[in-house]
Amino acid sequence: MDLKEIAIKKLQERGIKIQDISLIVYELQKNYNDDLTMEICENAILKVLEKREVTYTILTGIAIDEAAENGYLNDIGKIIRNDDPLYGIDEILALSIVNVHGSIALTNFGYLDKLKPGIIGKIDTLGKDKKECHTFLDDIICAIASSAASRIAHENKDGF
Amino acid sequence: MDLKEIAIKKLQERGIKIQDISLIVYELQKNYNDDLTMEICENAILKVLEKREVTYTILTGIAIDEAAENGYLNDIGKIIRNDDPLYGIDEILALSIVNVHGSIALTNFGYLDKLKPGIIGKIDTLGKDKKECHTFLDDIICAIASSAASRIAHENKDGF
Amino acid sequence: MDLKEIAIKKLQERGIKIQDISLIVYELQKNYNDDLTMEICENAILKVLEKREVTYTILTGIAIDEAAENGYLNDIGKIIRNDDPLYGIDEILALSIVNVHGSIALTNFGYLDKLKPGIIGKIDTLGKDKKECHTFLDDIICAIASSAASRIAHENKDGF
Amino acid sequence: MDLKEIAIKKLQERGIKIQDISLIVYELQKNYNDDLTMEICENAILKVLEKREVTYTILTGIAIDEAAENGYLNDIGKIIRNDDPLYGIDEILALSIVNVHGSIALTNFGYLDKLKPGIIGKIDTLGKDKKECHTFLDDIICAIASSAASRIAHENKDGF
Repeated sequence: MDLKEIAIKKLQERGIKIQDISLIVYELQKNYNDDLTMEICENAILKVLEKREVTYTILTGIAIDEAAENGYLNDIGKIIRNDDPLYGIDEILALSIVNVHGSIALTNFGYLDKLKPGIIGKIDTLGKDKKECHTFLDDIICAIASSAASRIAHENKDGF
Repeated sequence: MDLKEIAIKKLQERGIKIQDISLIVYELQKNYNDDLTMEICENAILKVLEKREVTYTILTGIAIDEAAENGYLNDIGKIIRNDDPLYGIDEILALSIVNVHGSIALTNFGYLDKLKPGIIGKIDTLGKDKKECHTFLDDIICAIASSAASRIAHENKDGF
Repeated sequence: MDLKEIAIKKLQERGIKIQDISLIVYELQKNYNDDLTMEICENAILKVLEKREVTYTILTGIAIDEAAENGYLNDIGKIIRNDDPLYGIDEILALSIVNVHGSIALTNFGYLDKLKPGIIGKIDTLGKDKKECHTFLDDIICAIASSAASRIAHENKDGF
Repeated sequence: MDLKEIAIKKLQERGIKIQDISLIVYELQKNYNDDLTMEICENAILKVLEKREVTYTILTGIAIDEAAENGYLNDIGKIIRNDDPLYGIDEILALSIVNVHGSIALTNFGYLDKLKPGIIGKIDTLGKDKKECHTFLDDIICAIASSAASRIAHENKDGF
């Protein structure tokens, strides 16, 4: 398995399907693109997942969430499990995905992280309930969705 | 006059009062802070404006807007006047304010830049109508407001 | 002319040839890649210049330098002409190029900005002598060179 | 113990004394400041360590290094232990420290990360020898040192 397949499999294990992310991308871009389809959104996500920096971030973020869930990581593990709003390292990690996709990705990332639509809100709630730890994962989903939206915005204009 | 006073005066010349920004900060933070007042918001904005990096960004961004308005800046002047959605340099410049205020500033920045509440939407519309050029200014207001919100979030918890 | 050609022409007008940048990229990467040639470096630079965000940054940065040179931009124009070390907006603007090329670009950027090898030092000195203004341009050259180096580092490993 | 003390203790456990970092800050700033002393450098570092975002990053980065060292973190644990040059998540995490200290911190960070003077090179070598894992720690030291240097540069000029 290559890194991309490992990342997709890991996302599924943690409750995230590509389709869940496609729905968010579709909502972000439908007003700017009359011909938008769910397939276009899914393809844009798959393109985002081809970058080494993206898969490394996904695997690192989920590994931290799982280690916190399992009681490792000492004191900081507790802070991560509590998803303290002043703990901003999860957003910073997600920037490694957002940054390489330009400024449209950046503004959409903030928007999604604040409103938490669809699957983002669902896993955030699961985490807040302390049954699971998704402190890093919800920001990573925001980053993947906003980066895919940025790809579509650029392709729509440039035709590449 | 020191840099902070020059920046405030320049913002006013371009149609932005500190109070306009306070309203946005208040809306961002009211749900997290029962004791929030407009005065707290205004003080947080004034603290943000004390940083040299913030005033330099304000003065640079407005200078670019004015130069574009006056027909300078050659080919790129036209692109700036048109506020092309794929022109992301205005968001990048605003990051010099957002970055120094941490990750709460960052997510609020994206949220404001997308929804454009209050004065942000007003100057964005003025710019889109081509009467004036506010391509950089609207992102700078988003950056100041989100940074002030981040200051309040941290103070509320830490008491500093 | 497309944006890429306009950007290359503008760089030449301001005294920068692609070959000058290739020399810097070659020095950055030669220890990590036995088969490195000047042609590989030049091709990597041309790939960097294909991104819309990169050409927009080049054209904006040079337009600011020229406006400052010509006495526009008011008070901030003076600060830009003086290239005050605490004026960090030029580095921030260059981040729009560096960010989209990942973390190898980021560390190389800081390294080049501090040591200023080759053409970077030359235009920095021209600017410091107050004959011309290259406050934004030298950081942009650092950003292009470090991004091209990052491209080569990734290609060398991944074969794409 | 407050967060700052916990972070300092944790740094010591991993082989890093504040004095080791002071030496690096001193080298970075001595040419710009005739009155620079080791005490000034140490105080600047202690100020950097007062920010919540900084201590959270230190504790998170070290926790990841230790988890990787102990064989946790699955597949990505191996990549972290190997400190693959294309694994850039360690640099991104360190940005949470660098970003809040402005653009002088940013360029110094890249410079230190590339040249690895003093203690940075020492722990990098320990990590590369596979006896310990310091993939995140070396970038964190670069970030603390470059942020302290930025503080001194600003203070020297502004007197705050």
